[in-house]
Amino acid sequence: MYELYYWPGIQGRGEPVRLALEDAGAEYLDVARDKEHGGVSALARVLESEPRVFAPPVLKDGPVVLSHVANILFYLGPRLGLSPADETGRHVAHSIQLTMTDIFAEVHDTHHPIGTALYYEDQKAAARERTAQFVEHRLPKFMRWFERLLADGRNDCLLGGEHGYVDLSLFQLVSGLRYAFPKAMAAREGELPRMRALVDRVAARPRIRDYLASPRRLPFNEHGLFRHYPELDLVPEAT
Amino acid sequence: MYELYYWPGIQGRGEPVRLALEDAGAEYLDVARDKEHGGVSALARVLESEPRVFAPPVLKDGPVVLSHVANILFYLGPRLGLSPADETGRHVAHSIQLTMTDIFAEVHDTHHPIGTALYYEDQKAAARERTAQFVEHRLPKFMRWFERLLADGRNDCLLGGEHGYVDLSLFQLVSGLRYAFPKAMAAREGELPRMRALVDRVAARPRIRDYLASPRRLPFNEHGLFRHYPELDLVPEAT
Repeated sequence: MYELYYWPGIQGRGEPVRLALEDAGAEYLDVARDKEHGGVSALARVLESEPRVFAPPVLKDGPVVLSHVANILFYLGPRLGLSPADETGRHVAHSIQLTMTDIFAEVHDTHHPIGTALYYEDQKAAARERTAQFVEHRLPKFMRWFERLLADGRNDCLLGGEHGYVDLSLFQLVSGLRYAFPKAMAAREGELPRMRALVDRVAARPRIRDYLASPRRLPFNEHGLFRHYPELDLVPEAT
Repeated sequence: MYELYYWPGIQGRGEPVRLALEDAGAEYLDVARDKEHGGVSALARVLESEPRVFAPPVLKDGPVVLSHVANILFYLGPRLGLSPADETGRHVAHSIQLTMTDIFAEVHDTHHPIGTALYYEDQKAAARERTAQFVEHRLPKFMRWFERLLADGRNDCLLGGEHGYVDLSLFQLVSGLRYAFPKAMAAREGELPRMRALVDRVAARPRIRDYLASPRRLPFNEHGLFRHYPELDLVPEAT
């Protein structure tokens, strides 16, 4: 039984891990959301007792304790049948996942460009400037990169026709971007047919469809990583 | 023979890879710095011909082509004798390295908080605000985390007495922070004796000492990731 430790009220960085566990039909406990197992104080305890963990999410697999989304997925990939069988293939999948890690951080900084110790309300002007740069330059650069990867693959998969955790994470990334920046995404998605097909394919996988319809799937909200603020829902100038 | 592809004029994100290769005495070609092998246009060609690479650094090992510093070090670790022998230990090392990846990104954003498509001069006010937050909150949080890890280890190593690529990368991180933020680091280092000892230990390793004294070690400069701008060399308020 895997144990996932993550903030109980948000999808955030925990969601790519949840999607992989759900897609594989793995038995897991979402510890901080389970009051019988200590709830959020169980998360606090693991952060205190595991000095090698800097921040959640954390995965426990028996004596193994790992942090960082991409690292957790690298570890889980072969165990869940969601990464290539060979070492090189796993590192290639990992490099794609790490690019998504970079995008997640950039999305976080659209609403927190100055610092995480400050409220969004205390950095709104800079947030608007950073978001304008993000939707104009970064968002299309990242999306076109994925579209090109998909063009090199087959069957709407990032890794040559073989479904994997990277596809689940791209589904999550695009879902979050649609929630946070619907206008910018609407302006871009016309040129991203393969990415749209991948998102549809993942959403139709039986276990993912069940998960998305279940109470285990938290809604997006303004405490998470992908936040919808109308004042940051900007239309890119050049499309 | 390993091939490293990275921007030729900066240490940047390429330097943790260079340090690992140098420390191990590995044969490698720093392709973009070698005019006989195409110089910077060789880097441009690899970015164009390898769709799975989003950004440098890139490592080529025969047919294997990998991006992302932490991914490259995960791959090189066992080959260079710079990571634990067991799978769990390698993932633990990787999680420490990924925390450094996060810090590198935060350091980059101290001088580019609004966007990479803009000059520093066009985001100086926000850069000062973000840097104030960084030296006040993030820098001590990260540094204390490493100090605690070292207290749990032995012999000034992050991983229980076994020298590895994570130690080399922490050396690079601290060196860069001392260059960029000497005042903030001077205010903090008194409480970080183990970290200082690690940096001294790494600098005294014979191959690293030779490397640092050689022309292969580029100087820090204001095109790289760690930049010294006097107006961002802030003194933290609470120490």
